[in-house]
Amino acid sequence: METLLKNLIEKNKHWTKKGRVATYIPMLGQANPDIFGIAVMDMKGNVYAQGDYQYKYTLQSITKVITLMLALMDRGPQKVFQYVGMEPTGDPFNSIIKLETIQPSKPLNPMINAGAIVTASLVKGDSPELRFNRILQLAQKMADNPSITYNHQIYLSESETGNLNRALAYFMKNHGVLQGDIEQHLEVYFKQSSIEVTSLDVARIGAIIANDGKSITTGEEIIPASIIRIAKTFMITCGMYNASGEFAIKAGIPSKSGVGGGILSAVPHQFGIGVIGPALDEKGNSYAGVKLLEELSETLNLSIF
Amino acid sequence: METLLKNLIEKNKHWTKKGRVATYIPMLGQANPDIFGIAVMDMKGNVYAQGDYQYKYTLQSITKVITLMLALMDRGPQKVFQYVGMEPTGDPFNSIIKLETIQPSKPLNPMINAGAIVTASLVKGDSPELRFNRILQLAQKMADNPSITYNHQIYLSESETGNLNRALAYFMKNHGVLQGDIEQHLEVYFKQSSIEVTSLDVARIGAIIANDGKSITTGEEIIPASIIRIAKTFMITCGMYNASGEFAIKAGIPSKSGVGGGILSAVPHQFGIGVIGPALDEKGNSYAGVKLLEELSETLNLSIF
Amino acid sequence: METLLKNLIEKNKHWTKKGRVATYIPMLGQANPDIFGIAVMDMKGNVYAQGDYQYKYTLQSITKVITLMLALMDRGPQKVFQYVGMEPTGDPFNSIIKLETIQPSKPLNPMINAGAIVTASLVKGDSPELRFNRILQLAQKMADNPSITYNHQIYLSESETGNLNRALAYFMKNHGVLQGDIEQHLEVYFKQSSIEVTSLDVARIGAIIANDGKSITTGEEIIPASIIRIAKTFMITCGMYNASGEFAIKAGIPSKSGVGGGILSAVPHQFGIGVIGPALDEKGNSYAGVKLLEELSETLNLSIF
Amino acid sequence: METLLKNLIEKNKHWTKKGRVATYIPMLGQANPDIFGIAVMDMKGNVYAQGDYQYKYTLQSITKVITLMLALMDRGPQKVFQYVGMEPTGDPFNSIIKLETIQPSKPLNPMINAGAIVTASLVKGDSPELRFNRILQLAQKMADNPSITYNHQIYLSESETGNLNRALAYFMKNHGVLQGDIEQHLEVYFKQSSIEVTSLDVARIGAIIANDGKSITTGEEIIPASIIRIAKTFMITCGMYNASGEFAIKAGIPSKSGVGGGILSAVPHQFGIGVIGPALDEKGNSYAGVKLLEELSETLNLSIF
Repeated sequence: METLLKNLIEKNKHWTKKGRVATYIPMLGQANPDIFGIAVMDMKGNVYAQGDYQYKYTLQSITKVITLMLALMDRGPQKVFQYVGMEPTGDPFNSIIKLETIQPSKPLNPMINAGAIVTASLVKGDSPELRFNRILQLAQKMADNPSITYNHQIYLSESETGNLNRALAYFMKNHGVLQGDIEQHLEVYFKQSSIEVTSLDVARIGAIIANDGKSITTGEEIIPASIIRIAKTFMITCGMYNASGEFAIKAGIPSKSGVGGGILSAVPHQFGIGVIGPALDEKGNSYAGVKLLEELSETLNLSIF
Repeated sequence: METLLKNLIEKNKHWTKKGRVATYIPMLGQANPDIFGIAVMDMKGNVYAQGDYQYKYTLQSITKVITLMLALMDRGPQKVFQYVGMEPTGDPFNSIIKLETIQPSKPLNPMINAGAIVTASLVKGDSPELRFNRILQLAQKMADNPSITYNHQIYLSESETGNLNRALAYFMKNHGVLQGDIEQHLEVYFKQSSIEVTSLDVARIGAIIANDGKSITTGEEIIPASIIRIAKTFMITCGMYNASGEFAIKAGIPSKSGVGGGILSAVPHQFGIGVIGPALDEKGNSYAGVKLLEELSETLNLSIF
Repeated sequence: METLLKNLIEKNKHWTKKGRVATYIPMLGQANPDIFGIAVMDMKGNVYAQGDYQYKYTLQSITKVITLMLALMDRGPQKVFQYVGMEPTGDPFNSIIKLETIQPSKPLNPMINAGAIVTASLVKGDSPELRFNRILQLAQKMADNPSITYNHQIYLSESETGNLNRALAYFMKNHGVLQGDIEQHLEVYFKQSSIEVTSLDVARIGAIIANDGKSITTGEEIIPASIIRIAKTFMITCGMYNASGEFAIKAGIPSKSGVGGGILSAVPHQFGIGVIGPALDEKGNSYAGVKLLEELSETLNLSIF
Repeated sequence: METLLKNLIEKNKHWTKKGRVATYIPMLGQANPDIFGIAVMDMKGNVYAQGDYQYKYTLQSITKVITLMLALMDRGPQKVFQYVGMEPTGDPFNSIIKLETIQPSKPLNPMINAGAIVTASLVKGDSPELRFNRILQLAQKMADNPSITYNHQIYLSESETGNLNRALAYFMKNHGVLQGDIEQHLEVYFKQSSIEVTSLDVARIGAIIANDGKSITTGEEIIPASIIRIAKTFMITCGMYNASGEFAIKAGIPSKSGVGGGILSAVPHQFGIGVIGPALDEKGNSYAGVKLLEELSETLNLSIF
């Protein structure tokens, strides 16, 4: 496995030159586009890693999976899906159009920004700090790494420039999909996006998903299997922005990407995978990361289909 | 004229039963749907009025014309039209779709909400209070009525429930069309919408527009004729929400309606007209008011076409 | 007037370099982008012309005005507006989106392609040939030029490549807005677009509109004044594609442009104008033609507003 | 299994009362809404069936899977996906909007009408008859039933009223996504939709998909496994119209529904399933069929996630 990963990193590293670092959040624009790394954890807890697997980056949209699972644990599927849909969308992740054109006006799914603002609002907690901390704690527990925290500078950068997310949130408040104080919901949302990890952390998070929600080491249930199943389904249908369909066909691995360049993948009962490559393709996914995962899937026959 | 107006009020009053009072701003929902009145001022200053012409209502979208003219006086057309377009839109006045689909992302015209938030942001003044006061003063001057003020309760109601306008504003801030503090711009916007008038006031405002910007009594230039011309053009192409085209064909009078049920009309070199009828049609225009103006136009041959 | 026109042609000729000849209809792509000419007819029948006023071009969308007037004469406004709306649209002239999003599904106005296909279908006649001939005859009569005909090669080129118009037509047939044989309606539509004229012809057509439908020479009513009024209104609100609002503000002259580079203008009770300049701006209007008309309007104060 | 199916049919039969038979194709409107049946085939060739499993219905959209597979065999994935995308869409199956708004203008996926018209155009054959026959033969071979044919009356009904599909096709021809004679492509498309089957046939077709493309009885490869994988992926992401995401979460079985009320399902390496229930929910899926499959999946733990 080490050799395979090393070869794949070397073979696909040139793709990093094709992509571009996200710049709409100013702090993200400072990332190094040459970074490229992967970590893989199997169901026995063995970890294989190559390239820049120790590079720290923010989860960005990857957190949407964690927040969804926490909201589902807190409120149950019936309540959650009253406010957010289950359908993929052909539109970009930050599009506002369907909120106006579809009746009732609720976000199509929890993997687009509007939907993730809703799930963040559904996490229990008496204050935004408490709500965010519960999301952070779940990330720490899944990654088995209590030192994980969020990057305050990136959080501030997101909050300052996050007016499109504010627009989505106020639009949803107008239609009753969001309740309460919008800036508090956005504080949770922006902080959760700024949780900082390495690909090792992400691989461990993926391993929990691959292991039906149970700890690899202790077997303890961290997340109920029924909720893991929902998460995996969304990762297939909506996990890679509006390239999800193509990735499902080419790789077939439940995955979620973030504009920080990270990708969280979970090969059921086999592997948790964390990939980093901040140079993005035009859909917002790590250019080299996608290529690597497609080749890894083909080599090891990892597609769930 | 008195007889004509009296007959038209009587003949068209039954239409008030067909419409519905606006309810999306809770305070507006308390309006009496049976109200129906008109005031007309000619170029000699004669005033004719019938029905509930003394009924007080808030300008709502009618203010958009006044704010546009003030922004044009403050910044000049070149600067204003850098941030707001000149094109009619087939979409509802509060739609957000075109802000996403059209490049560059600026509101299509200053008569829809997004565009009017922009023009309100372009009015000069060191604070939202000062900016709003300058709009109010222009309204007072045009109406020759220094006692006009805004309805604080309706302002609060609009501000509390105005999340769709917040969404529009933050969306535009994201694209650089709006700068500065959004809540301050919205304070100006919501206050200007809450300016309270009678149809007599509105008729006098219309008379200034009909008189190319000059006072009827003193001949003093209140607004430059070149700016009046721009205002009249928008009133024809976009003044009656997305029923503007139909009203241009049937009445052909530069007009602007508001969801409070008021209509401001200006028959060039002939009349300023104020109409009130809070029961609205499905496009958001006074049901009976539109019918009355169409018939008035036909009777007196007032169409500019 | 001759001097003025000469100066305006010279002064604005450089704009022809900025525009681009339409190429989506292959035959139109062969037009000479340097062509630039104008003809003006006053209400006494005097004609002033400069530049390439004898250049022959096809009416394209300009015919939409003529066909609308004939459909209105044939069926009456009530019937016509049952199948086509009166509202400007912020979308391009060939857009299909609003046919899907707006209920009921009818074209927003008769100046966009979908709407003009509907009005062409409403012209009376037992065959497509007869229907087209009636449109052609009205054009001939308005232009006082019985030799006007259509360009068969351009018609064939339009018909061969007009699949977007076919899509619009079948979409409308699906919703009951169009009845009968679609290819026959399109034959009328494509032929009427291919009617070939000079700017002299167009100026004469404009003069009839400016003269409330009556012949300049004989005073005979060619088109009822009430229908002329409807046509002028559409020319202001929707005549220049989705630059109609800007042109209304800058020139204020009821006009209709075509992608052949022609513009038909009617200054009420003053002038009929024909302009040609095949190099188009990005909205589809003659680049130099628009500039010339704006300057002519400003110089002679021709705006109706 | 027989008992389970019998119970599920009885338990879910009342849902047929909630749905409505499709009426936009007139002949489909004559279907009996009370019909409800299921057939299941396992990998050993055992067949279990209950309810109206012998009822004949037309495949409608279910054929899209078969045609996609044949196009992929004929042209290869690279060529096919040059003309049709791989992404789910949040829009209805017959929507035309995204063809205008997305660049390049190609259908988002082969499970919506526009996409299926494209794949039908990519099936090899010198005439529409030959192309359709090749699709029919593949259906016959998969269903191991050479007597399957198409319903000519329903074909005629579809062709007569299929103007929305004509609009989609001409729109795509305009953008070069479709080439050649549109009516010929539509002939293939409408005929393939009219292929008439029972749920037994559909279960056998599903069994081939569940068996990675190989015959259950002989083990012969009918379709390459790599193409089966693509088909299963689309069935998960786009198979149930714009309720695909919800069905993926609730049932998790690669499936494709049709407005005739049929559903084709393939549980990898376990079962092929055919369901019929012509009373549809508002998304266009068999109301009772969806409920039955969700419960069957939960009972037997059939989700692939």
